[in-house]
Amino acid sequence: MNNFEYYAPTCFVFGKETEDLAGKYVKKFGGTKVLIHYGGGSVVRSGLLDRVKKSLGAEGIAYTELGGVKPNPRSGLVYEGIDLCKKENVDFILAVGGGSVIDSSKAIAAGVLYDGDFWDFYKGKAIEKALPIGTVLTIAAAGSEGSPDSVITKEEGMFKRGASGDALRPRFSILNPALTQTLPAYQTAAGITDIMAHLYERYLTNTDEVEVTDRMIEALLLTMVHEGPRVIADPNNYDARANIMWAGTMAHNNSCGVGRSQDWLSHDIEHELSAMYDCAHGAGLAVTMPAVFTYEMSHNVMRFAQVATRVWGCQMDFAHPEVTAKAGIEAFRRFLISIGMPKNFEELGAKKEDIPALVQSLCRGNGRNGTLYGFVTLNEDDCTKIYEMMV
Amino acid sequence: MNNFEYYAPTCFVFGKETEDLAGKYVKKFGGTKVLIHYGGGSVVRSGLLDRVKKSLGAEGIAYTELGGVKPNPRSGLVYEGIDLCKKENVDFILAVGGGSVIDSSKAIAAGVLYDGDFWDFYKGKAIEKALPIGTVLTIAAAGSEGSPDSVITKEEGMFKRGASGDALRPRFSILNPALTQTLPAYQTAAGITDIMAHLYERYLTNTDEVEVTDRMIEALLLTMVHEGPRVIADPNNYDARANIMWAGTMAHNNSCGVGRSQDWLSHDIEHELSAMYDCAHGAGLAVTMPAVFTYEMSHNVMRFAQVATRVWGCQMDFAHPEVTAKAGIEAFRRFLISIGMPKNFEELGAKKEDIPALVQSLCRGNGRNGTLYGFVTLNEDDCTKIYEMMV
Repeated sequence: MNNFEYYAPTCFVFGKETEDLAGKYVKKFGGTKVLIHYGGGSVVRSGLLDRVKKSLGAEGIAYTELGGVKPNPRSGLVYEGIDLCKKENVDFILAVGGGSVIDSSKAIAAGVLYDGDFWDFYKGKAIEKALPIGTVLTIAAAGSEGSPDSVITKEEGMFKRGASGDALRPRFSILNPALTQTLPAYQTAAGITDIMAHLYERYLTNTDEVEVTDRMIEALLLTMVHEGPRVIADPNNYDARANIMWAGTMAHNNSCGVGRSQDWLSHDIEHELSAMYDCAHGAGLAVTMPAVFTYEMSHNVMRFAQVATRVWGCQMDFAHPEVTAKAGIEAFRRFLISIGMPKNFEELGAKKEDIPALVQSLCRGNGRNGTLYGFVTLNEDDCTKIYEMMV
Repeated sequence: MNNFEYYAPTCFVFGKETEDLAGKYVKKFGGTKVLIHYGGGSVVRSGLLDRVKKSLGAEGIAYTELGGVKPNPRSGLVYEGIDLCKKENVDFILAVGGGSVIDSSKAIAAGVLYDGDFWDFYKGKAIEKALPIGTVLTIAAAGSEGSPDSVITKEEGMFKRGASGDALRPRFSILNPALTQTLPAYQTAAGITDIMAHLYERYLTNTDEVEVTDRMIEALLLTMVHEGPRVIADPNNYDARANIMWAGTMAHNNSCGVGRSQDWLSHDIEHELSAMYDCAHGAGLAVTMPAVFTYEMSHNVMRFAQVATRVWGCQMDFAHPEVTAKAGIEAFRRFLISIGMPKNFEELGAKKEDIPALVQSLCRGNGRNGTLYGFVTLNEDDCTKIYEMMV
């Protein structure tokens, strides 16, 4: 195991009707003038936004608001949010929505306290300070409610890139599984896929002797294998939603990823798809992961055989471990299809003829030099082959 | 799953030579005048105390010190520590040692900022504030480095009782697995047992639909089953020590225990043994748990069958689940014996004739009314029978 520092101070408030506590927690963490940041009409139509405003009002907390965050959140709205916060002297950002809303809030939070262009942070500049953030989560997926990470798409060039910093960790996150019961099945499944991707990206490591984090990741994957189909079959199953929601947070707060190298090549490769086609990130991952894993498998057959036996219930073929390893990838692929995720470029709305452009943006865009590093090292040829496997 | 709040803001600094960072982290969390609290001679002889002092000195941080914490830490030294902190205007407590040292530090930290008797907190008074604490951990066991809990023995009456409060959570904890390599095998095994007890106490729940936390607990138990014997066979195995150390912290920071009722009857029943005989808490638990679990088994056979199959590799007997449940308890008992733990009163140094006194203190001491509540409800007869099973 490698040396590490682990610091995850977010206060999680979990369960039924907890959104009514938003005002109380903003106050507890020092907010006096709040920007409520959200996406489209669903939080308005469901009455959630009104309940959150009411709870802020009950604590005497002033607020302004900025809606319009889209999936794969864009830089344009971030600039708008930064200007609004400065103009209104906002001292706390409350994200009401999913990962896109939270990521957009994090970008604004960092940008408000920075004199330069916030995009600098997404090109690698260290984030030293940010406005405090709270969240009211409406989809179990990105794990952004408990993570230091944010992913934004720069509209000039449509680059999708991430930034990270402890200052971006939410002070509190309100997690009411009931809020996710009204999600369309496709979004629920995309969220499940994203959570499982966060687990696989950590599982695929080049660090030896990491039994404790291996087992923790497997535990969360097993939870998703059990609860995913239940919630697709019965969207109103509160208990299944609750198990998925806590698994989603635990999958990405990095308690199961410390002290080990991680992969994240599937995320890099997918980000080009959702940037170009504006598909759901989870749906893109469902198409990407089986191809990436198949490409990576020979790098460490035993690692793929381990997850195949421990999570997917495959019988270990001791004479031919690669058979077991492949069976595990295939079981994952079938699982993703079974919950309604796309299986190839066509179902995703991607086009084979775009592959050169995807590879160019992936390997050369935003200052990259042609090589990607993760569980394995990939060059442009490798990436081309991986995209071709998805067709 | 039940509603819950989860807040675990401790910063963990994990890995080789991290004790040299103690001064840096005390400074980061605002300490200017430190009480270094520790136990016996081992931290002196090993040079650890000197290294910690050197790192405080390098940051220009003043300190005073108080050694002498014993296993099953006593109220007398707590009173002494409170007086010393007040006299020296201490604003930060640095615990260098194991769970006993950390628990003693927490009691001092709460007591310094309280006008009454600190023991009030161990009789149930809510803890609202405490001096900040940091830890340099020297044994993987109690999980106190990441928990809000403290257990102290009151010398008048020898009552061993716990207190809890978020204010007691350490600001940072330094976890260097190499520091645990010099532990005697018996202490290592007692630590392993304590960690597994923290997991079982959470596993034995009356809350339905808790797949995610069930799986997380099982993951940590599986880690202990794998790494425990390795470290007993090879005390210098850094990697096995590292896996156990992180598992010990994760076992007790409650991320795997949220939203579910918990048991803690084994801890209650054991506390009387270590209070009366001054045995190692983990050793007492090794004798206590198999008896308690056997007594509790009929309350929920399937829960014991689940852990038997998922953790202990027992084959499920679908016609007779109680056979599987029993096999799991027996496998755990054999595991504890295999790592060198005692199996009965005699090996622990306890006496059958003391059972009435143990039951009296357990069920009637310190304001209790004769009934204990956990996974099951126990009266004095039940407790007598359980102690008799351990003979």
